[in-house]
Amino acid sequence: MSYQKYIEHCQKIADIHYSIALLQWDQEVNMPEKGAEARSRQISTLSVIAHEWSTDKNFGRLLEELSKDSSLTWEQKRNIELSFKDYQKQLKYNSEFVKKLSSAISKAFNAWQAARKANNFEIFAPALEEIVALKREETKLLGYKDHPYNALMDEYEPGATVEMIDSLFNGVKFSLSELLEKISQKDTPDNKFAGKKYEATQQWKITEEFLQNMGYDFSAGRQDYAPHPFCTNFNAQDVRVTTRSNEDDLFDMLSSSIHEGGHALYEQGLLMANYGLPAGSYISLGIHESQSRLWENNVGRSEAFWKSSFKIINKHFPQQCAGLSEHDAFIANNIIQSSLIRVQADELTYHFHIMIRYELEKRLIEGSLEVKDLRIAWNEMYKKYLGLDVKSDNEGVLQDIHWAHGSMGYFATYSLGSFYAAQFYHQAQKEMPDLEDKIKNGHLLVLKNWLNQKIHQYGRLYSAEEICQKVTGEKLNFEYFHQYLENKLKTIYNW
Amino acid sequence: MSYQKYIEHCQKIADIHYSIALLQWDQEVNMPEKGAEARSRQISTLSVIAHEWSTDKNFGRLLEELSKDSSLTWEQKRNIELSFKDYQKQLKYNSEFVKKLSSAISKAFNAWQAARKANNFEIFAPALEEIVALKREETKLLGYKDHPYNALMDEYEPGATVEMIDSLFNGVKFSLSELLEKISQKDTPDNKFAGKKYEATQQWKITEEFLQNMGYDFSAGRQDYAPHPFCTNFNAQDVRVTTRSNEDDLFDMLSSSIHEGGHALYEQGLLMANYGLPAGSYISLGIHESQSRLWENNVGRSEAFWKSSFKIINKHFPQQCAGLSEHDAFIANNIIQSSLIRVQADELTYHFHIMIRYELEKRLIEGSLEVKDLRIAWNEMYKKYLGLDVKSDNEGVLQDIHWAHGSMGYFATYSLGSFYAAQFYHQAQKEMPDLEDKIKNGHLLVLKNWLNQKIHQYGRLYSAEEICQKVTGEKLNFEYFHQYLENKLKTIYNW
Repeated sequence: MSYQKYIEHCQKIADIHYSIALLQWDQEVNMPEKGAEARSRQISTLSVIAHEWSTDKNFGRLLEELSKDSSLTWEQKRNIELSFKDYQKQLKYNSEFVKKLSSAISKAFNAWQAARKANNFEIFAPALEEIVALKREETKLLGYKDHPYNALMDEYEPGATVEMIDSLFNGVKFSLSELLEKISQKDTPDNKFAGKKYEATQQWKITEEFLQNMGYDFSAGRQDYAPHPFCTNFNAQDVRVTTRSNEDDLFDMLSSSIHEGGHALYEQGLLMANYGLPAGSYISLGIHESQSRLWENNVGRSEAFWKSSFKIINKHFPQQCAGLSEHDAFIANNIIQSSLIRVQADELTYHFHIMIRYELEKRLIEGSLEVKDLRIAWNEMYKKYLGLDVKSDNEGVLQDIHWAHGSMGYFATYSLGSFYAAQFYHQAQKEMPDLEDKIKNGHLLVLKNWLNQKIHQYGRLYSAEEICQKVTGEKLNFEYFHQYLENKLKTIYNW
Repeated sequence: MSYQKYIEHCQKIADIHYSIALLQWDQEVNMPEKGAEARSRQISTLSVIAHEWSTDKNFGRLLEELSKDSSLTWEQKRNIELSFKDYQKQLKYNSEFVKKLSSAISKAFNAWQAARKANNFEIFAPALEEIVALKREETKLLGYKDHPYNALMDEYEPGATVEMIDSLFNGVKFSLSELLEKISQKDTPDNKFAGKKYEATQQWKITEEFLQNMGYDFSAGRQDYAPHPFCTNFNAQDVRVTTRSNEDDLFDMLSSSIHEGGHALYEQGLLMANYGLPAGSYISLGIHESQSRLWENNVGRSEAFWKSSFKIINKHFPQQCAGLSEHDAFIANNIIQSSLIRVQADELTYHFHIMIRYELEKRLIEGSLEVKDLRIAWNEMYKKYLGLDVKSDNEGVLQDIHWAHGSMGYFATYSLGSFYAAQFYHQAQKEMPDLEDKIKNGHLLVLKNWLNQKIHQYGRLYSAEEICQKVTGEKLNFEYFHQYLENKLKTIYNW
């Protein structure tokens, strides 16, 4: 009876959150420009309701009561435990702080846009200072063990700590620098797809075919255009992806759709019966990202994938693909090249972009770095890790929207995603020795079903660490990513 | 101070209503089929909040206090008066009744769909009986003077009464029967656009051009496809229309877009400063419909309009329009032909469809007709008024969705819309003697601006009756419609 009441309350909160998600999706995909003002107040009104319901005292008492109820099943107990943790966390935010933060964010977002226009970090710096001050305050509100940055990371990757990420990234830095060094002594292979035009409507058809093959259910989702690709959902039966087109680069839209499709398979794989409950929600951003990157990279940049997929792009772009081969497509998707922009980075150098941001954020939060010195620190690290000179702020410290959105503690989850992905994929290959053959023949559903069964169906019932242990038999181990990447690059760069 | 609190409360309620409107728009336009289940619970959760806030006791006390505040301006007083009326009305609905009605409606909607599939009214009848019983109960909850049906009409057309509509429709019946009689003795002119194919994407471009010419602001709205054309809005700066395509009939999509565009101009013409207030909302469905029909019929089926618009359709369909003239387009849009389906009816016979529904609804509500006898009554009236035999329920009593939606008291507003439109348009012509010349040259903005200034900007500050008096100097007068139609048909049917 009490548990039923708990479910109903959670589902009502979910109704509000998902309504907000639709308001936001529409804002990115459909909304006419003049609609922005009223839309933002509508989102804000719904957010206040969601917050009030999430911190409702009666709900708190119900959770407390249920957390002592020994008659509950294991799954019910786990739901209560997570909801209680969420509830207690929400309580730590007083409404004064929430208001201050949200007004600082909207100021920072405007300042960031202005700074981008002028290509000048100084315009953004004062607003960012405010954000950093508030984020430092937030760590105190939330409380933390060992390092204040832990409090922020916990929001995106529950359980992640500076200690763990520092130690992980030390190894990553060493191994990937070594790999990068090896590659830098080799010739860069040719991207034979470059320098041609690829009509967007044809690219779109290819992405639809790819998504279909992956097992994305179009009767429980849809794809649209948006300036920044993303995946969102309004329940497990309405999970939408967006993509963007670049007619100069065939693989930009394709890999973006595969990436978002990977996110979408996770959300479509959650169980409708768990709507609104922790068991019906994703574990962490790192695990979410593992799903998108597994499809984008481990599958979508593999030789096996292009064995079956080259004919799809060839069908839609016969002229551009004339004389080219499956192998050429594989190569074009795996060229390593240090560059300044994170979102355009390859699978290897990407992680240096992340480690730079992680390091800088951590120092901003702990107070060993101030915003006024951020640009210099940024540029020094790009020189140190990637050997690149940052010539302008837009190519440097202004490139990401995260800080303007008040998202700090987020970046590491991108790398965690890649590392989890490699480990999961290795396990999938072990359990399905014919997986590569299947992929060579375009049969991807077997992998989707494996992920559904091993990961998606559980929602948050297991933590990131637990699901990794459960699925692969060990903790997160960077060596799987390292091996995967080295093996692939060896065949391309010949060593 | 109190008035400011009043505004804030109204605007928060509006935030919820407009969020619901987006959830519904998305449902019609974008939602994948499997999304329906969760969507309906999301809408229901938001509806409960909107109802709770609308009937909040503190809000009631605030309204009571403000309704005695003599320091308010005329406009403020009018807002309070209307909000207080809305509040008191909302209070009359107890939650038990709301639940019963909403469950009856969802049952009726399913039954109606099943009945349509089987083309058999008997399948729908039991569910409709329940709706009618609840609607009779609703008239008691709401209270009424003179006739129970007045309580229901008031929801859609505040102030409309059976006495007024009966007397109006008596005149309408007489005059339009006479006109129809005259026409039936003449030859039906040829629709020279019939029997050809019109590609939907080209039709779409024409509708965009038409909407643009009317002054529809695409930066504060958008057009999409949907099975049933409608207009909705999320504030005055985000007003969306939908349309449908029929490649066999050029004018189906065009007139549908113009019609919805007319609705949209009304909503775009409301003042953003009045967001959430009565002054920022439409007067009644009759007045709303007057705006759509003024554009669809008085403008869009006029000879002047086709003088400038024929070249637009000719540009997009040069082959189909070869050898045809502006006059042919005018004729094709004005052929009178009795038929069984309301939504396909011409400007004249349309009102018989409405009068039949009005009469039947009124009798159902007053209890002089029962659902079991509805089909027979329906068919008899089609024979009597239009001389037609109804051969199947889908072409008869099952054709409209309104009853399945629990909307009773609605239909008369369609005819009111046509009559108000003719009266407003007559006034516009009087005040702008060069209006027809402007329209002949495709300059429609002058009319949009006139409507903005005379009607739209005031929202609900004036009632339908008051705005009619204010704009035209007299009460609603059917003779304007009669004259308008007779004059036009005379030129086409030559008498």
